[in-house]
Amino acid sequence: MSDIKKVVLAYSGGLDTSVILKWLQDTYQCEVVTFTADIGQGEELEPARAKALKFGIKPENIYIDDLREEFVRDFVFPMFRANTVYEGEYLLGTSIARPLIAKRQIEIANATGADAVSHGATGKGNDQVRFELGYYALKPGVKVIAPWREWDLLSREKLLAYAEAAGIDIDMKHKQGGAPYSMDANLLHISFEGRHLEDPKAEAEESMWRWTVSPEAAPDAAEYVDLEFERGDVVAVNGVRLKPHEVLAKLNELGGRNGIGRLDLVENRYVGMKSRGCYETPGGTILLKAHRGIESITLDREVAHLKDNLMPRYAEIIYNGYWWSPERRAIQALIDQTQERVNGWVRVKLYKGSVSVVSRDSKDSLFDQTIATFDDDGGAYNQKDAEGFIKLNALRMRIAAAKRG
Amino acid sequence: MSDIKKVVLAYSGGLDTSVILKWLQDTYQCEVVTFTADIGQGEELEPARAKALKFGIKPENIYIDDLREEFVRDFVFPMFRANTVYEGEYLLGTSIARPLIAKRQIEIANATGADAVSHGATGKGNDQVRFELGYYALKPGVKVIAPWREWDLLSREKLLAYAEAAGIDIDMKHKQGGAPYSMDANLLHISFEGRHLEDPKAEAEESMWRWTVSPEAAPDAAEYVDLEFERGDVVAVNGVRLKPHEVLAKLNELGGRNGIGRLDLVENRYVGMKSRGCYETPGGTILLKAHRGIESITLDREVAHLKDNLMPRYAEIIYNGYWWSPERRAIQALIDQTQERVNGWVRVKLYKGSVSVVSRDSKDSLFDQTIATFDDDGGAYNQKDAEGFIKLNALRMRIAAAKRG
Amino acid sequence: MSDIKKVVLAYSGGLDTSVILKWLQDTYQCEVVTFTADIGQGEELEPARAKALKFGIKPENIYIDDLREEFVRDFVFPMFRANTVYEGEYLLGTSIARPLIAKRQIEIANATGADAVSHGATGKGNDQVRFELGYYALKPGVKVIAPWREWDLLSREKLLAYAEAAGIDIDMKHKQGGAPYSMDANLLHISFEGRHLEDPKAEAEESMWRWTVSPEAAPDAAEYVDLEFERGDVVAVNGVRLKPHEVLAKLNELGGRNGIGRLDLVENRYVGMKSRGCYETPGGTILLKAHRGIESITLDREVAHLKDNLMPRYAEIIYNGYWWSPERRAIQALIDQTQERVNGWVRVKLYKGSVSVVSRDSKDSLFDQTIATFDDDGGAYNQKDAEGFIKLNALRMRIAAAKRG
Amino acid sequence: MSDIKKVVLAYSGGLDTSVILKWLQDTYQCEVVTFTADIGQGEELEPARAKALKFGIKPENIYIDDLREEFVRDFVFPMFRANTVYEGEYLLGTSIARPLIAKRQIEIANATGADAVSHGATGKGNDQVRFELGYYALKPGVKVIAPWREWDLLSREKLLAYAEAAGIDIDMKHKQGGAPYSMDANLLHISFEGRHLEDPKAEAEESMWRWTVSPEAAPDAAEYVDLEFERGDVVAVNGVRLKPHEVLAKLNELGGRNGIGRLDLVENRYVGMKSRGCYETPGGTILLKAHRGIESITLDREVAHLKDNLMPRYAEIIYNGYWWSPERRAIQALIDQTQERVNGWVRVKLYKGSVSVVSRDSKDSLFDQTIATFDDDGGAYNQKDAEGFIKLNALRMRIAAAKRG
Repeated sequence: MSDIKKVVLAYSGGLDTSVILKWLQDTYQCEVVTFTADIGQGEELEPARAKALKFGIKPENIYIDDLREEFVRDFVFPMFRANTVYEGEYLLGTSIARPLIAKRQIEIANATGADAVSHGATGKGNDQVRFELGYYALKPGVKVIAPWREWDLLSREKLLAYAEAAGIDIDMKHKQGGAPYSMDANLLHISFEGRHLEDPKAEAEESMWRWTVSPEAAPDAAEYVDLEFERGDVVAVNGVRLKPHEVLAKLNELGGRNGIGRLDLVENRYVGMKSRGCYETPGGTILLKAHRGIESITLDREVAHLKDNLMPRYAEIIYNGYWWSPERRAIQALIDQTQERVNGWVRVKLYKGSVSVVSRDSKDSLFDQTIATFDDDGGAYNQKDAEGFIKLNALRMRIAAAKRG
Repeated sequence: MSDIKKVVLAYSGGLDTSVILKWLQDTYQCEVVTFTADIGQGEELEPARAKALKFGIKPENIYIDDLREEFVRDFVFPMFRANTVYEGEYLLGTSIARPLIAKRQIEIANATGADAVSHGATGKGNDQVRFELGYYALKPGVKVIAPWREWDLLSREKLLAYAEAAGIDIDMKHKQGGAPYSMDANLLHISFEGRHLEDPKAEAEESMWRWTVSPEAAPDAAEYVDLEFERGDVVAVNGVRLKPHEVLAKLNELGGRNGIGRLDLVENRYVGMKSRGCYETPGGTILLKAHRGIESITLDREVAHLKDNLMPRYAEIIYNGYWWSPERRAIQALIDQTQERVNGWVRVKLYKGSVSVVSRDSKDSLFDQTIATFDDDGGAYNQKDAEGFIKLNALRMRIAAAKRG
Repeated sequence: MSDIKKVVLAYSGGLDTSVILKWLQDTYQCEVVTFTADIGQGEELEPARAKALKFGIKPENIYIDDLREEFVRDFVFPMFRANTVYEGEYLLGTSIARPLIAKRQIEIANATGADAVSHGATGKGNDQVRFELGYYALKPGVKVIAPWREWDLLSREKLLAYAEAAGIDIDMKHKQGGAPYSMDANLLHISFEGRHLEDPKAEAEESMWRWTVSPEAAPDAAEYVDLEFERGDVVAVNGVRLKPHEVLAKLNELGGRNGIGRLDLVENRYVGMKSRGCYETPGGTILLKAHRGIESITLDREVAHLKDNLMPRYAEIIYNGYWWSPERRAIQALIDQTQERVNGWVRVKLYKGSVSVVSRDSKDSLFDQTIATFDDDGGAYNQKDAEGFIKLNALRMRIAAAKRG
Repeated sequence: MSDIKKVVLAYSGGLDTSVILKWLQDTYQCEVVTFTADIGQGEELEPARAKALKFGIKPENIYIDDLREEFVRDFVFPMFRANTVYEGEYLLGTSIARPLIAKRQIEIANATGADAVSHGATGKGNDQVRFELGYYALKPGVKVIAPWREWDLLSREKLLAYAEAAGIDIDMKHKQGGAPYSMDANLLHISFEGRHLEDPKAEAEESMWRWTVSPEAAPDAAEYVDLEFERGDVVAVNGVRLKPHEVLAKLNELGGRNGIGRLDLVENRYVGMKSRGCYETPGGTILLKAHRGIESITLDREVAHLKDNLMPRYAEIIYNGYWWSPERRAIQALIDQTQERVNGWVRVKLYKGSVSVVSRDSKDSLFDQTIATFDDDGGAYNQKDAEGFIKLNALRMRIAAAKRG
């Protein structure tokens, strides 16, 4: 194990990754570089610097980066262009953040001459896969240290004992018995797993949810929001032009106060088991609806259907951790090519947990009122064409029925 | 045109199909058989008999059938087994009723020795295709009369004039200027098209909706509903065992009073244009969520993903009118085979327009708490297996990155 | 019918399109622009000019274009990048030429101010669809004249009589009873339909084939050919750098003399019927094999499988005539993106009707001999990784088997 | 390691599995049950019994089974119903045999009360995955021993030394330096890997091939073969009704003597690397062509295209080892449902390495000569229908072109 010289750790500053930091130093006797990213999880990052210094990390080995704009611009938005949903429900909030962490971690490894990277994901989950597939794809010779798969601190008690022995500050919440929810947050969502959620029969407790008010507690009056799209991405909310991460932050605020975006799900993990998760994705839930809304008037039918056909595969690729794979890039080339004319404006109504498209318009609209009308269309469409259309579409079935009597 | 001897008309008893009935008699000088079906549209059917008699239809040529159970059992439920949604939103309420109408119409044609069938769908819409593909698939030599593609009564005024001349009763609503919404209803949904909906920018008026209260007007307290599934179909609601059509009627009642199932959409018609439609599908909206819920614990991951991959194609088949095609039957064989263990129980919460799964359980559950737990699992799952899993899954990307530097 | 002023006719100079030319003049009293293209069909084009002049076509209204390079570069090669095969067998030789004809015809219509276009395809086949979908996609307001769907010259006799009356020269072969095969040729293939091929039981006569010697008559010694690829396209044959159309001409020569590329098929037409066709595609058959060969060492597995998954849809798009559709362009964006590293060299063996890849190499090869070897690999691959890989891949099936006993 | 009591070994009687047998006894001190199957590999099995006895295996623990009929009936034929080809070329000869071996091995484990199973596949290949996924799916608690992943006999020399020390007879061929090809044979094919094939540039040596004569050495006259199909499976060859495995044996004989079914391929393994393989699949190559031939006249177009769309996924499932998965069963339900009318007769021509369909007929044919004919069809098909068909299919593209000008 002594062949690791320098390792870049994805470091949140919290209890688990602090224990990992110490354990890496103890176990590998190696230099540690800490990397802490702001991807909109809503926590202060500077405390992580102080903690790292306390562990003896050199100042030049402490990386604290604001990745919010890159996260939304290069990961969240491209994913939403495909109307991506995993297993019919999940908006992939955690999945889409991992590739960015992996990429930045490898950049730091290259910058600091590190030969290894490490993360705090467990051996049962999807995140280890997402991190490590990213590492290997971007730096094939890198060494990966996944402490949860190596150490023997698998119970809460052992972890706390190790922390105590190492002089790591332990929050009261950790000491007060009962494991907390396993949570993950970024600008797209916050997720909850574990505890009594491990019984799919048990309804989630109201007190668990953090980003959204309950629909019952949301305002009694609906709120309307206008979203402006350019090439498939939102560029303005209620007439105010915003950067990508500002768009998502704004939609989270709007969705959160209207009780939008809660999800309670049993999903299939890539490592082979089913797991129960609860998610709050207020802005993303609005974004998905609105994007389908603008596509409904600007996208050709067969292109839309082609996208729908590819979407489950694309969602699976992202969920399973293959963002940096050549197959994801290939599908992305198709998706992005289709968004050229996905421009225009959508109005959604937010009300106590639900979001609905009520209005949409675009200079690139393919909706043709002259043809669609139920009134006399002045010959724009010749109804007699439908007879031949139907007859030839029916021909193969008529021949079969006639032959097989 | 004189070669038509007897035609079976899909007859609602309303203004349009009454004009068609008269027009068929006038134009083809042929015997007319009327067929009126109860598929849960919520209108009395007996008035259709009186009207038909008034047109001189022979009593033995008047068919009035209650098809509600067959409709839900053999069409709606099989479709929901696939979690079928068209273009991400539409639950196919109209599409799924047409094949049954077509089938019964052909049965009546065979029983009465009719050589032709006729319907009241226009030449611009999908329904003409759905009806006629059904006719041709089931009786390849049948003659099809689609009056809207043949006659010159394309404006509202001409139609009313013809009706008046023919002595057909015209409701006040028809006389009072302005075309009504084009509506279609059955146990699964009611749809609205036309009028000011023809402008995708215009929000639907609250007064248009018929089956659901507005979310704002729904009760202030959430309502919980328990659904029991057997082989993918709901067999009991809140502990009461019900027939298929009773299930849907009950869910419509529950959904309707909680403001659930409204949809405002621009969709792509099979005949090539975009059109705006509004739909109320209260029971179906609950059913879809609950079915995904029960599948989430009883279906294998890859089977679930396979179904998700096939679903858009299956939805397209139904939307476009190919229910009676061999490709629909082939996919159905796959879908039905997957539902053998889709048994169990789902609890949903209904509240002011939204429906959420909050709890689910099954004797056929594939959820394994021992393995899924974040706590110590006593060795049920070996975390070290994940390393090899990731390494081999990454191998192709590592080789590529190494080779391409 | 008098509202047509000028029509661009796809004119081969042969009997059928000469009759059409005259019929257009007679029927529409309009100016005719003739367009004759060299797409490698192997016939002299200048006689078409003389014939057109004889019909009174103005010299400036006679277009004779050499489209061979554009045909192969912009149509054939892009299609082969996807390893495109329709219904498992057909290399789409006719389908891929139609979009180019349509495009050029519309360009000429725009250049000459014509308001209509016309073609010689019958009302039963795919080609009418391919031509007209192209016309409409590229010039939505154009008028289309399809004489075979309009006139009453549906029998061979009537056609010949009309020709005779119009003073059109009739080749001896046309006079000598018996309809000829319906043939179509371009640089990619020559096709045969009709006559006794209309009986799927009847074996094709040896005398029918034109471009290939029979395998039995091919040389007794195999011939090896080296193909050099850049970005998925062949750029050199046997070390000689060639233009796209020269590549295909060369491969046709090599394949033709070795009896390669004959196909006898019953296929499903887009208009709903099955039809029997025979095809000679010597160069294309070699190209397909070789392209798969170069991809086998340069393409990532999942990208290759993604392409295989999309290919049937892409083939259907081209077969059905949707080359100019947005869905074809979207898929093409994906396909082309995957070809960036499809560079290298393939050796094929041609022998009496069969073509096999025997050798391939590339500077962009992803084949890693160190890892692939059955000999000791010095630790390049850790066999123990396979255990975890298998165990996690098996997990969902183990849980299911354990739960369901 | 002492917790293994009884292990069922897939035992060929050859050098490698003999070393494994001894190694299992030495390492695990456990009882060994040997299982030797005849799946048409063309070797005598009784010598395996004598060898097993020599190792001290109890007579009741020696299983020698003739699985040829089950192999072809329940594995090969179902697979060919889908026209299954992996990566455009490979007929899955090895992949399809593994699930049967796994199944029978588990049956024997259950019958003998064994708690473990073992196989001779290496840690780099697909076969370990195919065996073990089968084991785990059919007996989730079984222990799996994969010696190649456990022991240190990874070089040829060490293996031979171990064999010598254990008193295992070593064929001269093994002693004479140079590793042999890694070969696998069953009724469907024989495969070759390793040695100089590990260089994708190197052409395979003529002396390697075993089941087929070289095309050059095949007879100078073509041979015609008639195949009779029932529900998608061949039931008679040249008029002689045969059992499934007799069909394949007969086709192997016919194909082999005509040089048919050689393939030289670089393929993508499931474990992440590319590998070069050569295959001889004479009967399967004929079967695939003929099955497509009979489907071409008996299968509906959309059903055929649906099958083509699913095939790459189905091939991947089998190649990767998921025969016993629920997703394979689901797709099989679809495939089998489509074969109900795939009855009839196909004639193929075999000649020096190539196989072509020249004739086909069926009482269930959907080919309609009346409609397909180029001659006057007497009104069976109304060419004017094509106009409406094209116009409505073009509508979405016309609207787009008009709007976007």
